[in-house]
Amino acid sequence: MRTAERRNALRATAAARGLDAVLVTNLLNVRYLTGFTGSNGALLVRTDGADLFGTDGRYTTQAGTQVPDVELLVDRATVAGLATAAVRRGVGRLGYESHDLTVDGLAGLEKVLADAGGTLPELTSIRRAVEAQRAIKDDDEIESLRRACAVADQALAELAAEGALRPGRTELQVGRDLDARMLVLGAEAPSFETIVAAGANSAIPHHRPDGTELRDGDLLKLDFGATVDGYHSDMTRTVVLGHAADWQREIYELVAASQAAGRAALVVGTDVVAVDSASRDVIAAAGHGDHFTHGLGHGVGLEIHEAPGIGPLGAGTLAAGMAVTVEPGVYLPGHGGVRIEDTLIVTDDAPELLTLTSKELLVL
Amino acid sequence: MRTAERRNALRATAAARGLDAVLVTNLLNVRYLTGFTGSNGALLVRTDGADLFGTDGRYTTQAGTQVPDVELLVDRATVAGLATAAVRRGVGRLGYESHDLTVDGLAGLEKVLADAGGTLPELTSIRRAVEAQRAIKDDDEIESLRRACAVADQALAELAAEGALRPGRTELQVGRDLDARMLVLGAEAPSFETIVAAGANSAIPHHRPDGTELRDGDLLKLDFGATVDGYHSDMTRTVVLGHAADWQREIYELVAASQAAGRAALVVGTDVVAVDSASRDVIAAAGHGDHFTHGLGHGVGLEIHEAPGIGPLGAGTLAAGMAVTVEPGVYLPGHGGVRIEDTLIVTDDAPELLTLTSKELLVL
Repeated sequence: MRTAERRNALRATAAARGLDAVLVTNLLNVRYLTGFTGSNGALLVRTDGADLFGTDGRYTTQAGTQVPDVELLVDRATVAGLATAAVRRGVGRLGYESHDLTVDGLAGLEKVLADAGGTLPELTSIRRAVEAQRAIKDDDEIESLRRACAVADQALAELAAEGALRPGRTELQVGRDLDARMLVLGAEAPSFETIVAAGANSAIPHHRPDGTELRDGDLLKLDFGATVDGYHSDMTRTVVLGHAADWQREIYELVAASQAAGRAALVVGTDVVAVDSASRDVIAAAGHGDHFTHGLGHGVGLEIHEAPGIGPLGAGTLAAGMAVTVEPGVYLPGHGGVRIEDTLIVTDDAPELLTLTSKELLVL
Repeated sequence: MRTAERRNALRATAAARGLDAVLVTNLLNVRYLTGFTGSNGALLVRTDGADLFGTDGRYTTQAGTQVPDVELLVDRATVAGLATAAVRRGVGRLGYESHDLTVDGLAGLEKVLADAGGTLPELTSIRRAVEAQRAIKDDDEIESLRRACAVADQALAELAAEGALRPGRTELQVGRDLDARMLVLGAEAPSFETIVAAGANSAIPHHRPDGTELRDGDLLKLDFGATVDGYHSDMTRTVVLGHAADWQREIYELVAASQAAGRAALVVGTDVVAVDSASRDVIAAAGHGDHFTHGLGHGVGLEIHEAPGIGPLGAGTLAAGMAVTVEPGVYLPGHGGVRIEDTLIVTDDAPELLTLTSKELLVL
């Protein structure tokens, strides 16, 4: 099973850091390492291979189905139960997730370890070791992302074909249509609060849909995604209603060129800052640098925003298997804005495009 | 504004604890105290009244609209920005949320405070002070909960009227229909992963809907809710398809009687353990005590599960304005189960029932 391979990779990290075990408390990390989708679970990964998965009584059946290959500990106090078991089984150096565990959680863990009897283990943070693993997607994850992106593509295609994106409807109506259609097509949920921004609202990068009516001549920006198997798709398309004015075509073509440059820069080994620049420079050269006010993109997976961040302040280089967005925009306050965004997989060859909706300017 | 009243209540708590200010980092608590719905924000509540709301540049416009009455600090490093401002403005004793701030977050906060120049403030946890406030809903919150419950009621009524709950359809199809219908009716999202459990699956308290087909004679358990204005509704109904067998009617009537007893126990000042017992005793007296395997209910609001917990291990008493669920169940492994759940408001008189769908046994 993929999850066993993932646990083995974390086991190797733990061994390399001289730890006897790692206590994974971040629920998404637990899901990644076990397949468990419940709302309460934690995992003890031991370097000797005797892992232990903890959850409460509500999830006994589900744990048996989803995590058949890890010993199960059912305990209301899930983390405390695993910590006690770790001490009793002789764990001397225990890693934990200091970016996830709260201050109260650490105090509770220290108390449980002290009360458990055996030798008090030494606690060491593993930081974002699991998140670092998660940045490189395996085949199962890429397949889930493909399906999540396909649901979003299909939902938009159906709504456009049905004339749901027409003057007189409101942003909120369009947003709810998109969300509902994605669910019908098999999404577990929208990836995030769907953005529908018409007319001047399209100049607001993260506009929340409201009662604003779509009007003839509007730019209409749609930023949305579907969650499938816990994996998030992320796509933005900007269309024009009725007819496109020259200034709208101009910034659309500019953003499209910038976005193509960003996608072309998705090459293994490239610094994320250079990826951002490849796209941003196109916009800056046209004099719109000040109108592109956010980073170029981000990793996507079990979270809608995860490593790597792709922007002027990012750090690190691209590796094969990373799932990232490329989403430049030009926003003219009070007038309108264009953003074009895809989700892609970095590969040893050209990146694999997962969001397949056309990027030609669509006039509806 | 309600949010100003809420901040004033927290201000009084802070003053009573001898603090100069409180740094609120839990995003739901920030939303509760300010109305801000973005994905990054923090709040400094000062006992002298000069509060400061922090977010990043994506949300400048939104913060202006949603939080017009608190001074705004736009800073990528939101919490660090507020902490620095607190030092510069002479805060000597600073409260923080130790159940929310991570171990890394506290280390970062301590570093920022040390680097900010002025006198190093003393950090003290306020624990769950804001959550304690949130347990008592004000009129605006109750109105949001009413609307969230009405959406769920309406969605179920429409699907039942359309014959969507019929043999041959799958649990997943029914679940997606419910979710999609709630969105169309104005929900922002389902309150949680909708539970649809048919036949023997209804005996699993938290069954995840799968490809199981609904069959004639099945118990069909539906546990779902809508989110409106960030507030969650929570309702379970169990129906029978085609015709009800005697054993099904028997456990249905038992659970209905238990649920009525639980609702009747929602009286201001009652210990939550006594509320649980009032309902549980009815089931135990019928010999099914071992088949009611979870607590009776929980508070509901900006979170689907919040204070107070109502169960054998709960603590505290009911107060007017609490929003709670009452959801006993009897689960016969391998056969089927019944749960009936409402969301209600505790008042000085009888509790206000928010989920209005009939609790008569419905045979579809």
